[in-house]
Amino acid sequence: MSKTKNISTFIGCESEYSEAEIVVFGAPYDGTTSNRPGTRFAPSIMRLESYALETYSPYLDKDIEDYNIFDGGDLEFPFGNIHKTLNIIYEYTRELVKDNKKPFMIGGEHLVSLASFQAVYKKYPNVRVIHLDAHTDLREEYMGERFSHATVMKRIYDLIGDGRIFQHGIRSGTKEEFRWAQKHTKLNPFALDSIEESINEIGDNPVYITIDLDVLDPSVFSGTGTIEPGGVTFKELLEAIKKFSNLNIVGADIVELSPHNDISGMSTAVACKVLREMLLAMVG
Amino acid sequence: MSKTKNISTFIGCESEYSEAEIVVFGAPYDGTTSNRPGTRFAPSIMRLESYALETYSPYLDKDIEDYNIFDGGDLEFPFGNIHKTLNIIYEYTRELVKDNKKPFMIGGEHLVSLASFQAVYKKYPNVRVIHLDAHTDLREEYMGERFSHATVMKRIYDLIGDGRIFQHGIRSGTKEEFRWAQKHTKLNPFALDSIEESINEIGDNPVYITIDLDVLDPSVFSGTGTIEPGGVTFKELLEAIKKFSNLNIVGADIVELSPHNDISGMSTAVACKVLREMLLAMVG
Amino acid sequence: MSKTKNISTFIGCESEYSEAEIVVFGAPYDGTTSNRPGTRFAPSIMRLESYALETYSPYLDKDIEDYNIFDGGDLEFPFGNIHKTLNIIYEYTRELVKDNKKPFMIGGEHLVSLASFQAVYKKYPNVRVIHLDAHTDLREEYMGERFSHATVMKRIYDLIGDGRIFQHGIRSGTKEEFRWAQKHTKLNPFALDSIEESINEIGDNPVYITIDLDVLDPSVFSGTGTIEPGGVTFKELLEAIKKFSNLNIVGADIVELSPHNDISGMSTAVACKVLREMLLAMVG
Amino acid sequence: MSKTKNISTFIGCESEYSEAEIVVFGAPYDGTTSNRPGTRFAPSIMRLESYALETYSPYLDKDIEDYNIFDGGDLEFPFGNIHKTLNIIYEYTRELVKDNKKPFMIGGEHLVSLASFQAVYKKYPNVRVIHLDAHTDLREEYMGERFSHATVMKRIYDLIGDGRIFQHGIRSGTKEEFRWAQKHTKLNPFALDSIEESINEIGDNPVYITIDLDVLDPSVFSGTGTIEPGGVTFKELLEAIKKFSNLNIVGADIVELSPHNDISGMSTAVACKVLREMLLAMVG
Amino acid sequence: MSKTKNISTFIGCESEYSEAEIVVFGAPYDGTTSNRPGTRFAPSIMRLESYALETYSPYLDKDIEDYNIFDGGDLEFPFGNIHKTLNIIYEYTRELVKDNKKPFMIGGEHLVSLASFQAVYKKYPNVRVIHLDAHTDLREEYMGERFSHATVMKRIYDLIGDGRIFQHGIRSGTKEEFRWAQKHTKLNPFALDSIEESINEIGDNPVYITIDLDVLDPSVFSGTGTIEPGGVTFKELLEAIKKFSNLNIVGADIVELSPHNDISGMSTAVACKVLREMLLAMVG
Amino acid sequence: MSKTKNISTFIGCESEYSEAEIVVFGAPYDGTTSNRPGTRFAPSIMRLESYALETYSPYLDKDIEDYNIFDGGDLEFPFGNIHKTLNIIYEYTRELVKDNKKPFMIGGEHLVSLASFQAVYKKYPNVRVIHLDAHTDLREEYMGERFSHATVMKRIYDLIGDGRIFQHGIRSGTKEEFRWAQKHTKLNPFALDSIEESINEIGDNPVYITIDLDVLDPSVFSGTGTIEPGGVTFKELLEAIKKFSNLNIVGADIVELSPHNDISGMSTAVACKVLREMLLAMVG
Repeated sequence: MSKTKNISTFIGCESEYSEAEIVVFGAPYDGTTSNRPGTRFAPSIMRLESYALETYSPYLDKDIEDYNIFDGGDLEFPFGNIHKTLNIIYEYTRELVKDNKKPFMIGGEHLVSLASFQAVYKKYPNVRVIHLDAHTDLREEYMGERFSHATVMKRIYDLIGDGRIFQHGIRSGTKEEFRWAQKHTKLNPFALDSIEESINEIGDNPVYITIDLDVLDPSVFSGTGTIEPGGVTFKELLEAIKKFSNLNIVGADIVELSPHNDISGMSTAVACKVLREMLLAMVG
Repeated sequence: MSKTKNISTFIGCESEYSEAEIVVFGAPYDGTTSNRPGTRFAPSIMRLESYALETYSPYLDKDIEDYNIFDGGDLEFPFGNIHKTLNIIYEYTRELVKDNKKPFMIGGEHLVSLASFQAVYKKYPNVRVIHLDAHTDLREEYMGERFSHATVMKRIYDLIGDGRIFQHGIRSGTKEEFRWAQKHTKLNPFALDSIEESINEIGDNPVYITIDLDVLDPSVFSGTGTIEPGGVTFKELLEAIKKFSNLNIVGADIVELSPHNDISGMSTAVACKVLREMLLAMVG
Repeated sequence: MSKTKNISTFIGCESEYSEAEIVVFGAPYDGTTSNRPGTRFAPSIMRLESYALETYSPYLDKDIEDYNIFDGGDLEFPFGNIHKTLNIIYEYTRELVKDNKKPFMIGGEHLVSLASFQAVYKKYPNVRVIHLDAHTDLREEYMGERFSHATVMKRIYDLIGDGRIFQHGIRSGTKEEFRWAQKHTKLNPFALDSIEESINEIGDNPVYITIDLDVLDPSVFSGTGTIEPGGVTFKELLEAIKKFSNLNIVGADIVELSPHNDISGMSTAVACKVLREMLLAMVG
Repeated sequence: MSKTKNISTFIGCESEYSEAEIVVFGAPYDGTTSNRPGTRFAPSIMRLESYALETYSPYLDKDIEDYNIFDGGDLEFPFGNIHKTLNIIYEYTRELVKDNKKPFMIGGEHLVSLASFQAVYKKYPNVRVIHLDAHTDLREEYMGERFSHATVMKRIYDLIGDGRIFQHGIRSGTKEEFRWAQKHTKLNPFALDSIEESINEIGDNPVYITIDLDVLDPSVFSGTGTIEPGGVTFKELLEAIKKFSNLNIVGADIVELSPHNDISGMSTAVACKVLREMLLAMVG
Repeated sequence: MSKTKNISTFIGCESEYSEAEIVVFGAPYDGTTSNRPGTRFAPSIMRLESYALETYSPYLDKDIEDYNIFDGGDLEFPFGNIHKTLNIIYEYTRELVKDNKKPFMIGGEHLVSLASFQAVYKKYPNVRVIHLDAHTDLREEYMGERFSHATVMKRIYDLIGDGRIFQHGIRSGTKEEFRWAQKHTKLNPFALDSIEESINEIGDNPVYITIDLDVLDPSVFSGTGTIEPGGVTFKELLEAIKKFSNLNIVGADIVELSPHNDISGMSTAVACKVLREMLLAMVG
Repeated sequence: MSKTKNISTFIGCESEYSEAEIVVFGAPYDGTTSNRPGTRFAPSIMRLESYALETYSPYLDKDIEDYNIFDGGDLEFPFGNIHKTLNIIYEYTRELVKDNKKPFMIGGEHLVSLASFQAVYKKYPNVRVIHLDAHTDLREEYMGERFSHATVMKRIYDLIGDGRIFQHGIRSGTKEEFRWAQKHTKLNPFALDSIEESINEIGDNPVYITIDLDVLDPSVFSGTGTIEPGGVTFKELLEAIKKFSNLNIVGADIVELSPHNDISGMSTAVACKVLREMLLAMVG
């Protein structure tokens, strides 16, 4: 058996593809950095470190081993080409959605969310988006570039329009972004305390959840590109996730873990636990 | 005078043995790791770093120098032999208890608590246990081993039985452990907010307090073996300790500091302050 | 143009001196350490790292670029001479005050506050002081030295006397310091929740605000000389700063960032954001 | 294709098993530490980090992609059971040897070498051993244990007897070990400069090479359990490996990388390059 | 005087522009990474840390303060635009050269060398290049990009052709790059021991020296993007630089310090000393 | 027995005072830094970490346990008072010398050498000094202070005069210091290769050896205040120490380890091994 190739999964995600309800996969893209990455290694290091985690969640009283989850490994990208990268993600997610799997993507930088969201949106045109983040990500362009981690939510907005993006925990951006958001998105800055209202408003509609982990305070999550003090606590995020179990989640991602930036390993441990809880919130 | 041997104590713990009300000692055991330890260096590094601490606590308005506390140094263990190690701890604690000292042990890993508790239990058969921890530690065996940091509370349970262990702050374990605890221990998961009820229930009974410092959130205590996000804050722990002053504490320990795992030194500073507060909560 | 010398400022502080309402400057003094500093590099590293910050504050809904702030760079000190150092700070601040600028000093260690305060006090003899800190800093002398980071608030007290220093967040000191403070300063230990009462009591009087950043919990600010667990959260500090906008602030400083002690960069990011918020709280 | 399970190999080792001349595999064993490993993560982290390496070696003027090498992934061990672990390694290596593959094991701690060597020895009873290490590893027992990283070469000696182990670079041990080695092994302490003589003496005999990477100086390899200053340089090790290409190598291993102990990543980069060079020295 | 703007220079480089023989300037470009840089902060952190350096070199018996060197600060680049960035460097260097200054650029990544070299080449068409590096940097394109740190020497070759680039210390690249270099450049792999021959061959011709600091072994210089064990020692590099004093150096640069990647500060200290020695080798 | 106070020694230095040939003691002085020290913790951390060391030296073929060495612990100093500190060291060393013990001091910063040397000099007025260091330490005063780590060798020179100080490995200082040294000391810059000549010249005269550990290259010893690339290798230092066994050493010290500056622990391991070798070079 060891004469076959080496398999590596997130803990407990050992179902076969055909059986799987959820498919976890990595999108190890961090722009054009050629080495000593940032977020590029997040999915592979999370897989390794996930073995320090229990599969059982006392918060949700569910065990990841009791569900069918497939870990599809990491997508492979042509280095340095944004559009081909986004297309690869799109095509893969599209196939998952066609096969009636729920996609759960591990970034990579936030831009990757655009592509997996597009595939989900194709199937569920009335999909809503819950967006947890430190940053608005609503620039029209960033340094002359329309496709960037700083513009991703604007690109998603371009697809689904006013009032369908529910932003929570936002604490940084330009004046213009904040002004614009007040008109076009459901902006709930600084905290997660109005999550319940968003959930009620979304109701039975399909929803895609994108969590930029820097929504967390750097005291517990410093392993990311830009440190923004003033974030939410891990317990506040857990509370939000517990409430997500009431939603009809059709896709999700967690992005922006840059494991080498936090040498204590805390950020990776946090990301793993967020992933476990999100998976358990999504399962039937 | 410098021709005598070199003395080293935790700050302010400079009483003679004969005068002492409390005896602090180290149990630098971390299993069978042969070097680049984990928790093995906790007591000696805490002694060194304690000199950055004030001896006065504004929380309890008491000064450690106003009380008689003896620091007995570290026990010496035959490397790699669990049972001899536990026996050495047991014999030393037993002698302290006989001499009417209150033992305060600094681990080492959590397994060491079993031995010092046994000595205390021998004198106070109706002793209760307050257990602060991230983990249940209630496995019947762990990787084929009945004596382990993951089974220590189960072994203590074997001595004292149902309803005498008050667990607080627990946030990780297997499904089976949680199910079992609901029946046999006083399980208060996730937080410390029901500490007062435990204290009331314990009343005048003698109590042994074992604090696995990973009950704290890793944002303030990452210097430990397994990082479990979602712990209590330092202030919440301080509040609990303040309430402990009303108890009849007959022994205590703090365990699982692994100082080299947190290069900022924060975890060691936290452990020192927890020790100061616990000592001041225990003194007459 | 690049044939002129190299200019370096905190982000957004690019006004000319003559136009400026506030003048930011660095006092890179950390006692007599001759290399591998501590707080000596805080102002220069903060300038570098400030470029990761947005100039807009969603908390105060103000943008630093909309105001006139001049960054005067760092003062230069004769190494190892406390009194000449204090004098250089005093003379510089005095000139700022004469020119009707509000001084905002970046330390360095806390002792530097004495000199800038003295210059402010000369112009506003009825000035009050808000002091956020982990430590009382009220020793009469420290290790035989009357001018020290541990005595600085006592020296300021010597100038302005009883009831004019409002201390918040204090959680460490000797018994004597706490006893003394209860009589002579407005001591609000542990937290910032009584800030509003202090603000009300100060009313329209001119006020100097000195923030020893170690008032923050080490989970978010470990880049300082002595780690004191149990501090306030970043959000609590932000709340306090928001309230400061109602005051007549005539001078301010933030001190005790030791950037190399926190290799994650979090402490420097925190200090930059505190500086941005404080500047926005002070502007007209 | 991404619907099949996730594959992970060392760079360039992508041949099928059946075609392979060499089989690389991991033996992630580091005794009984239950988390925050040491050497347990070496093989998986080396796989990840190997992608920063060129496949071409200018030293040997060979490219790893021009040869057939299979990466069998990591063996799975029952935690905490030394003998079962050794047996699993033995069985796997035995099968490789039977299939006429050359085994190349990545540790894990040095004890794992015993098992893979045993399998090789079974096929080649006249095998010699080249042993590069900082330590003699010749204790009869260590802390009461006959099977340990400190006894591994003694156990191998027990199999093959006098004069067949060529030890180079050794710089630490007890007086007894050094005395014993002078009689029973070919001991070349401190340096690698007599490698050529060992190679000549071995001649056409089959040889197993075991490299404890701590033979390197900690300036370039600090990511290991015990830091022993005074080791050989990376270039000296490369020179030795170049000479190994003249040998009839029938098996090899590199052990004792503990990647988390060197946060710069240098030690892992070193281990990857040593692996590349060793593989290229072994190929036809 | 502090009412003028804040000046910051490399230690001892305090001449006026008009007097200067050499002009030092920073080219803080590291591709398109938007934060948590790499080499972008090298020049500014080197300026800060240079104050731990003596201005006197006992190696060359010269003092930097005895010469006229101007520090022009850092160039400012439009983020994310390679060609505009190269143009800004080109224009600035061109002006220096016209003013009869010798340019000394601090990178930034290696690509920046192309632009400053072009300006020098315009004035000295028969210029030679000494190239110290771990990598060949001779790819025709890298990930579809013709302008990259991995292609920079090929682009320089395109300007000056066969036999004019003297490469020393190279130890990593593709097979194709090594093959190509053997025909078109003066390739001296692995070491610096043939520097003297290159110097003799260059003779009185003008020469541009580009030092990718990763030519050094990571044991002394790990603060760079890709760690390549097997580099030259600091003393070997010093020896080479001493010999450079005999050359007619018309421009130079040092590149690829990524200061945050080496938390010990060693790499930055090394870069500062290399800069001091290079400046002293270039002065009249 | 554990009822007596806690003893802590360097490994193998467990003789009684009365029997001892050598007395090791710590001088944990690092100027006026009040916390987060530098060299102040060197002796206590070396004691802790020394237990990772073998007591046997294969270089000298001697075992520390075969000799009588007493570890007197650390001296206690009145914080911030240079002259009282020096006096305490002087008095203690004087007593050792009177009792016919050879003093071996562990610093602290280099200034401490002055006081222990003075005591030795009092007994042996014709004593020579071997001084290994990166820095000349020959300033007449430093920042207005005559007693400093930067002036210590000048102060020793003031006692013993021309031609009695043998300086090796020096690679940093002012032009004036180098000029002065060329006339008044035996200056052997950059390397240790002329140690043998110094030893021959010293002959049977008593000699005091002071090793500033920064004579070592930062690649192996970065745990010190000022990083000076270009130092000697660990093996070169070992070679020198081996030769010292031929000298009549009457006192010695090693200084300037700042353990927290090197988080890998390598510098402390190096210091421990240097201490072991020096002790074995000094024993009868």
